[in-house]
Amino acid sequence: MRNFKITFEYDGAAFCGWQIQAQGERTVQGELEAVLSKIFRKPVKTIASGRTDSRVHARAQVASFKADTRMKPGEIQKAMNSLLPSDVVVLEVREVGDDFQAQYSVKSKTYRYSVLNQKVRSVFLRDRCYFYPYPLKVTVMRKAAKFLVGRHDFKSFQAHDPLRADRGTVRTIKKITISKEGHLIAIDITADGFLYKMVRNIAGTLLAIGSGQLPLNEMPKILKAKNRQKAWDTAPAQGLCLMSVKY
Amino acid sequence: MRNFKITFEYDGAAFCGWQIQAQGERTVQGELEAVLSKIFRKPVKTIASGRTDSRVHARAQVASFKADTRMKPGEIQKAMNSLLPSDVVVLEVREVGDDFQAQYSVKSKTYRYSVLNQKVRSVFLRDRCYFYPYPLKVTVMRKAAKFLVGRHDFKSFQAHDPLRADRGTVRTIKKITISKEGHLIAIDITADGFLYKMVRNIAGTLLAIGSGQLPLNEMPKILKAKNRQKAWDTAPAQGLCLMSVKY
Repeated sequence: MRNFKITFEYDGAAFCGWQIQAQGERTVQGELEAVLSKIFRKPVKTIASGRTDSRVHARAQVASFKADTRMKPGEIQKAMNSLLPSDVVVLEVREVGDDFQAQYSVKSKTYRYSVLNQKVRSVFLRDRCYFYPYPLKVTVMRKAAKFLVGRHDFKSFQAHDPLRADRGTVRTIKKITISKEGHLIAIDITADGFLYKMVRNIAGTLLAIGSGQLPLNEMPKILKAKNRQKAWDTAPAQGLCLMSVKY
Repeated sequence: MRNFKITFEYDGAAFCGWQIQAQGERTVQGELEAVLSKIFRKPVKTIASGRTDSRVHARAQVASFKADTRMKPGEIQKAMNSLLPSDVVVLEVREVGDDFQAQYSVKSKTYRYSVLNQKVRSVFLRDRCYFYPYPLKVTVMRKAAKFLVGRHDFKSFQAHDPLRADRGTVRTIKKITISKEGHLIAIDITADGFLYKMVRNIAGTLLAIGSGQLPLNEMPKILKAKNRQKAWDTAPAQGLCLMSVKY
């Protein structure tokens, strides 16, 4: 059996997230495995770098799968893209060593949370951004984000997840960058791993601080509290995008 | 009766174009008039700068309507946006003189045709661009476009339109700009008016020249021929966007 690593992008708007659901809802994993099983004429299982939720996007999600085939990686990519629906596309297929597994080999991931900060909503960005019409101080958001960089217990930013096995709540955020271009604010967070809804909970709290609803000095207190009740509301799913995965 | 000018954007993907259809399909005009009639509690008719086809977008389409109301323009905008679906949004409402009529007062319009020129399709741009995976020479496209600038008979680039009254086929293209940013090519055309499907027929012909399927010196011949059979295929609707209207 050969081992393959695929990098792919998806528009999360019409998906119930990455992971195949018991109820048979439309998922990215479901679409990929259906196509791979068709190409290789037997059931193929994929493992992604991690799950993404309903309506969350990916610019470069990674998955691995094993297959008994003579096809070249480029041929597999072409075959997949000709069969996949228009909201998923495979950017690269590479053959990798037996030890590679897309979930456990992850070194770090980068997520972007996108905010459209203007008075009128946008039709073109409605499924890609959180429309936030209130004034935001980006400099204050950057100061608040600094408290989060480093190795911390992020329990205050973790949503309850019945599916996830307990791997503790300590993670290392390597970098947070908050950039503004026109009316678009992008919050980029790179970490060795993320707790369930951690980026959206951080984004919601940063927006509360940037808009003045929450004082800047609350951020270190929230982090210390290790209590989800202390952080702000979860920012909506459509603003979130998995940008890259490093191995 | 007061006269209002509205500027609005729409994502054309789920619309059968601007104009209300006899068959009752979903149109931008239908959505706007339904909302205005609700706000003013009587039927309101809108006139746009011009029609757009199914799946064609607008960043700043303009329409006018008359209403007997004491509402301020900003209040009308807010009321409209709270009632409109997520794929149409009003960017501005202004009160204008009685003589303003959105169609006949037009001085010029600018359309953009967007092409995604890379080997792999994009999920995020699939409804906004024409995915064109073949190599393109933008410098050759710019040379070809120069033949079209000025006052010409554009009959070769006009599609048959049973609805449109004959206003002749001579128009003045004031400017064509072809810009490239990464893998995105934007063809911007400003003219005093456009024939039916003129931008998409020009875009299709420019792409045929840029890809080498058609020699550069065919462009002046096509223009002279005044025969739609001579120009290339119409480029698909989702790449087209009405960018601005000048009065």
